[in-house]
Formats: sequence, structure tokens, C-alpha cells
Amino acid sequence: MLEIFSLKHFPIIKQNDNIAQEILTSLRKNNLEIKKGDIIIIAQSIISRAEGRLIKLDEVNPSDFAMEIAKQSNKDPRHVEMILKEAKNICKNRNGVLVTETKHGFVCANSGIDKSNVPGENTISLLPVDPDNSAKKIREYIKKQAKKNVAVIISDTHNRPFRLGAINIAIGCSGIDPLKSYLKETDLFGYSLKSSIVSIADQLCSVAGLIMGEAKEGTPVIIIRGYKFSEKDISAKTLIRPAERDYFR
Amino acid sequence: MLEIFSLKHFPIIKQNDNIAQEILTSLRKNNLEIKKGDIIIIAQSIISRAEGRLIKLDEVNPSDFAMEIAKQSNKDPRHVEMILKEAKNICKNRNGVLVTETKHGFVCANSGIDKSNVPGENTISLLPVDPDNSAKKIREYIKKQAKKNVAVIISDTHNRPFRLGAINIAIGCSGIDPLKSYLKETDLFGYSLKSSIVSIADQLCSVAGLIMGEAKEGTPVIIIRGYKFSEKDISAKTLIRPAERDYFR
Repeated sequence: MLEIFSLKHFPIIKQNDNIAQEILTSLRKNNLEIKKGDIIIIAQSIISRAEGRLIKLDEVNPSDFAMEIAKQSNKDPRHVEMILKEAKNICKNRNGVLVTETKHGFVCANSGIDKSNVPGENTISLLPVDPDNSAKKIREYIKKQAKKNVAVIISDTHNRPFRLGAINIAIGCSGIDPLKSYLKETDLFGYSLKSSIVSIADQLCSVAGLIMGEAKEGTPVIIIRGYKFSEKDISAKTLIRPAERDYFR
Repeated sequence: MLEIFSLKHFPIIKQNDNIAQEILTSLRKNNLEIKKGDIIIIAQSIISRAEGRLIKLDEVNPSDFAMEIAKQSNKDPRHVEMILKEAKNICKNRNGVLVTETKHGFVCANSGIDKSNVPGENTISLLPVDPDNSAKKIREYIKKQAKKNVAVIISDTHNRPFRLGAINIAIGCSGIDPLKSYLKETDLFGYSLKSSIVSIADQLCSVAGLIMGEAKEGTPVIIIRGYKFSEKDISAKTLIRPAERDYFR
């Protein structure tokens, strides 16, 4: 059986806060203990805040190109400028709605830039520069302080082609192999499975997404207990479909 | 806290089996009781088998078009014929690898036709004709027999653009609103959320996918307990992104 719970009354994270320490403190306040094999899912928003990835729009000078796109989409040109700055590629630009490939390689709307859960009307939040490393630092701190091996996954809310309704996916991870292959296994009737590689990290983030919420729940840290996973330390970038195997970009 | 568990030793479902009754029997054998508000996630494969959606390839006559596509992809032309028959539209055909829009409206690889977990080397499994209705019948049977209001979701494994690793998504549901809107809510800092509609049904299926597995686990039924949802009875087709709001088809 899986058990999934949130850390209640998690503090509002500010720049330079030590999220790993806040998690350990919050566990104690929630009368919980971290256990070996726990998976800690953390909302990208608090990682970005702690790492100072908030941008005041007043300090951004939009280019002519950003202004042109902003006009099409009725967006703030300074916001568009930051979307372009965070991108290495524009995958779609339809009426100024941008789907980009971020510098990390994630294909997502608006380079993953967020306006929700960010303090200040004119402030936006960029994705962490290196979400795998953000996860790694938190995992190592917890290992050192609590002497427990856990997995840490940074989760973000994404919209998708073909499907309505956002879901949570993994943008960074540490201490876990985000993919699970069934390639060498057989099915119920003894036939070998041809192509079954499953994104367990994305599915784990979806689990967290159900409890995390998107609004003012204030529960950006979710613990999943009882799920067996490979502790091979593999980057969340392995979840990015290579362009040559992607029929839709 | 969410609790998630599988029904162990679930029998292998054959054509015309009563899945709802098998679930009730299995619950009893597992010393479990169904509870009001439980969410029952069922793998598409057993629904298709019970509903006689298995096709013997020997009985399929491929068209010239199917043979041409089969040649490009090194697939069985009879298999390709069935992919085309189940589709109302081809979204992508790259080297004979087909992404289609099924008659239900789902955009997926090979019209959702499966070769795994199907008995017989030359047998394939089609998606249920009306997965919402499959879910509804099971929900109503359980309501009548066990006097409990539950939600039922039919889950399938899908690959995705941009991301590697399949995840489970909802293709049919009953007794639940598969989408949750945060549109009228405010975020942590009091700002209103602009666009947050979350696919809770897809996320619930991802939870199930973690335990269901893809191989010979033989646990096609998963129960999720403790998740609060709207009992509005809405079709899983509301999860299909309308073509005009889809930038990638």
C-alpha cells in the first residue's frame, strides 16, 4: 500500500531559505519521521523562490520581438521578454501564445514561467536553473542530518497536447531512476512486452499534484511512502523525448 | 492522507465476465470493504477483454492502404488495418508509425490498440467502444450490490509528445468530474489564478499506474481512498483537448 501525505503548515519560503531544513522542521512539527525510501515531492514554486529566481518586471527591457509577440497575445512585453530569454527554441507561436524549449530542454508553455504563487503584482517566477541539482542538494542535506536515504523530485504543473487539464510532471530529481523499463519482462500471457517504459517520476508527481493543489493550499511538500523504486541517481532530463523521436515538434 | 491499494490475486478476466462482481468478490477475498467515496481505477485491458474487444488477426483483411503503411513500419498489415478502422483521423504518419484520433476522440498511438496482456499470439485488443459507459455499468452494479457510492475510472497507458515514458490516463469515468478548476480561487499571495484546470482523473490514473504495472503483475484494479472529488457525473471525453485549442495537431 502507498501512503501519501502533505506537510501541513509549511512555512512560506523566501529567498535563501534552506528548504531541506524546513522539511525536517516541518516533519517534526507534523509529528512525522522521514523514513528510508520515502519520496519527497517538492513544488517548483518554492525551489524557485528559495533560489532567487523571481524577476521584477520593472527591471526587464523588452526587445522589439518581445513587444510584437506581446501585442498578439495581449501579454506584458516584459513577461514575453523573459519567456524568450529562458528559451533556447520556440516550438509554437500561435497568436503570441508561446510553447518553447527551455534551456534545460523542457518543452512547455511560456518557458515554465509562472505568475501564480509569486509575491508582488509585477513579479514572475522562472524555473530553477538546474532542478536536478536543486533536488540533489536537498537529498544530501536530509541524508546528512536525518541519516536517511530518500528520493527527491521537483514537480511542475504542465499543460499538454491532446488533453485538457494540467498534470504535474518531474523537472528535477535525485536518488531515483525516473523511468522504469518493462522491456525484459513478459506479460500476463507469457509474451514479451515490446515497448513499455513508464515515467514513474511523472506519475509520482501526479500523485503529489492531487494533494498539492494549485491555489492557496500552502502544501508544497508531499511525501510518498511505500513505493519501491530504483535508487540509481538519474537526471530528470532523461524524461525529455529527444527531438528525433518526437513526432510533434 | 491518501491510501492506495491493489486487489491482489484478481482473476484473469474473460469475455462476458462481470468485472463489477469480480471486484466485489476480490475485495472480500482481500479482506477489504468498499467504502463510500472510494475511487476504483480499472485497467482498460480487462474491460476490453470482458467486452469481447479482442480481434483475431486471421479474420482481418487488410486494405491496400494498410499494406502500404505496414510496409513502412514493418508491422502486420492486419494490425494496421484495425488501427485504421478504429480511427476517424490520422494525426501523424511518420514511417508508418501512426498517431490517430480514435472514434472516441482520443489522440494516441495506434488507435490505442494493444498487443500486450492479450491471450493468443495473433490477437489484438481494441479500446472499449464506450469507456464511460463501461465505467457507469460497473459503478451502478457496485452501488446496487454494496450500497456504496464510488467513482469508477478506466485507465490506459499512453505515450506523449515531448516526454519519454508512458503514463496512465483516463479514457472513461463515472461518478466523478475528471477536471478540477481553480479558476475562481486565489493563490497563496491573494492573486487570482488565471488558468488552472487540473486533470484529476489523469492524475488518479497515474497513481494507479504506479501500482498496476505493465507486465504480469495481474493487478488491474486499484482502489484510491481518501481523495475528495466532485461526484458530478462527467464524461472522460471532457479531457480531450478540442482541436481548435490544440497547437499540436
